[in-house]
Amino acid sequence: MALIPLKTANKIKFKAFMECFDHIVTDCDCVLWLENNPIPGSSDVIKKFKEMGKKIYYLTNNSTKTREEYVMKCISLGFPARKDDIISPGFLVANYLKQMNFNKKVYIVGSEAIAKELDEVGIKNFGVGPDRMFGALPKPDDLKVTLESNVGAVVVGYDVHISLIKIAKACTYLKDPNCLFIATNTDRRKLIADQRYVLPGAGSMVAAIETTAMRKPVILGKPETFTQKTLTEKYKVIPSKTLMIGDKCSTDILLGKRAGFTTLLVLTGHDTLKDVQEWKSSSDATLQSYVPHYYLDKLGDLLPLLNEI
Amino acid sequence: MALIPLKTANKIKFKAFMECFDHIVTDCDCVLWLENNPIPGSSDVIKKFKEMGKKIYYLTNNSTKTREEYVMKCISLGFPARKDDIISPGFLVANYLKQMNFNKKVYIVGSEAIAKELDEVGIKNFGVGPDRMFGALPKPDDLKVTLESNVGAVVVGYDVHISLIKIAKACTYLKDPNCLFIATNTDRRKLIADQRYVLPGAGSMVAAIETTAMRKPVILGKPETFTQKTLTEKYKVIPSKTLMIGDKCSTDILLGKRAGFTTLLVLTGHDTLKDVQEWKSSSDATLQSYVPHYYLDKLGDLLPLLNEI
Repeated sequence: MALIPLKTANKIKFKAFMECFDHIVTDCDCVLWLENNPIPGSSDVIKKFKEMGKKIYYLTNNSTKTREEYVMKCISLGFPARKDDIISPGFLVANYLKQMNFNKKVYIVGSEAIAKELDEVGIKNFGVGPDRMFGALPKPDDLKVTLESNVGAVVVGYDVHISLIKIAKACTYLKDPNCLFIATNTDRRKLIADQRYVLPGAGSMVAAIETTAMRKPVILGKPETFTQKTLTEKYKVIPSKTLMIGDKCSTDILLGKRAGFTTLLVLTGHDTLKDVQEWKSSSDATLQSYVPHYYLDKLGDLLPLLNEI
Repeated sequence: MALIPLKTANKIKFKAFMECFDHIVTDCDCVLWLENNPIPGSSDVIKKFKEMGKKIYYLTNNSTKTREEYVMKCISLGFPARKDDIISPGFLVANYLKQMNFNKKVYIVGSEAIAKELDEVGIKNFGVGPDRMFGALPKPDDLKVTLESNVGAVVVGYDVHISLIKIAKACTYLKDPNCLFIATNTDRRKLIADQRYVLPGAGSMVAAIETTAMRKPVILGKPETFTQKTLTEKYKVIPSKTLMIGDKCSTDILLGKRAGFTTLLVLTGHDTLKDVQEWKSSSDATLQSYVPHYYLDKLGDLLPLLNEI
């Protein structure tokens, strides 16, 4: 059972479908909104889910905002949300380290949002913001003077200020095999401005650092195990009663399928129906694992169906 | 026949060994010098090779200098060299593009030296130097205004100014499947200051860009085919009569072995005898391919043997 156009379901089947779910886990960017513009109908659908008593989790690999900032964005764009409804990369990193009673310092190649989430659980951290090279080549002393002691983890996420000095510092800390190497996620890229321009994702920074560190990181975000465990263990989500909604098959849909959720792809973002149809007919098991159970042109297309229940 | 300590060869055997070679191809950094300090004895050995009528090529993956600048460095540190003796990444890129009558523009993520080598063969290029992000996130317009038309190749090498904007521009040009994607080399890292600090190599920048571009580059430097072809086709080096000297097995020695050269590892740089002994006894074919025919603590150790011939 895969790649069913949900919009064509009849009323009775759709009612039965919706009754299956206690929890709905949804990606944000390209499902609920595009940059700062809500996607038509998405907000009404999420509100309708809430009215029906569904518990909603907003699950994102975008590490540029704290959970508080996500709540503000959700509310301003018409999506009901509280802090505990948001599962963000910074939050996952803070939880991961807290669970292991981490008590050293974290060097962050990433955003202020990760730093704030670590601050919130009392984990010392540094590294956020510009850290630029001056001159032709860094001298050992340029690195030496700014290296801190007692660094127990390097966290790598999306960093608009990625630089040679940051890569060098991260990899120098990672020479110590006891220093943890954590990646928020490995999303490769984001297409902007009508898909004409390519922006790197966190995966680009992770690739630069893992190549030089000659080590592989633990990856916490979608589609990796830690996100799945956070949902099932911390939030007590029951896989058979959970719907995962997303626009990116290699993260959203794959996470859902690995976790045993029902998966719904919306075509307002990363992947096209043509992509998914090709994967479905492929003999490659990895590509097949990207194929969602259901799809919709946009999340708002559920509204007429939901109103009929 | 592998991993023989050359220093223990007797006079007759060593004479026969040296007589095999018309051409000697040597890496520079960590074989001839460390940063700006010549390694004791290396200069005398190279001069002795010249006296014996050997043709010397200096083959480097370091893309921070033009061939002219390499000649100046060689001479200032006591190594006889002319421009045609230097095979540098910028020179390989210029040759590669010239051979295919490339007539578009090149976007360079790399050094001024690559730009100068392209200038020399009349290939238009741009991109060298700082190109920084200001503000939190690049707006599409930030990319749009600076994108150039008629870009037919993206060349990626070691770039001290690597930045999000550079990665984004490179990957946006690479959206066009006709745009060539060329990497000077994929050296992962360099250890500096008594191996305490890790600096990224060009491989780090290449990994960041290939991850986001979702394309693999053509790699020109050691140990790849284009370097080998340049030596055998342009410089008419005869493999059975060539000695390759280097400190890094995954580039220098592997190139030599792939090309059918005799290979000599010196232990003044990247790899240790312990590493190589482990690879020799490994059952992994890749690791075995890194094992040189001969090794020496340092190149200067050849001097007493050469003086005895």
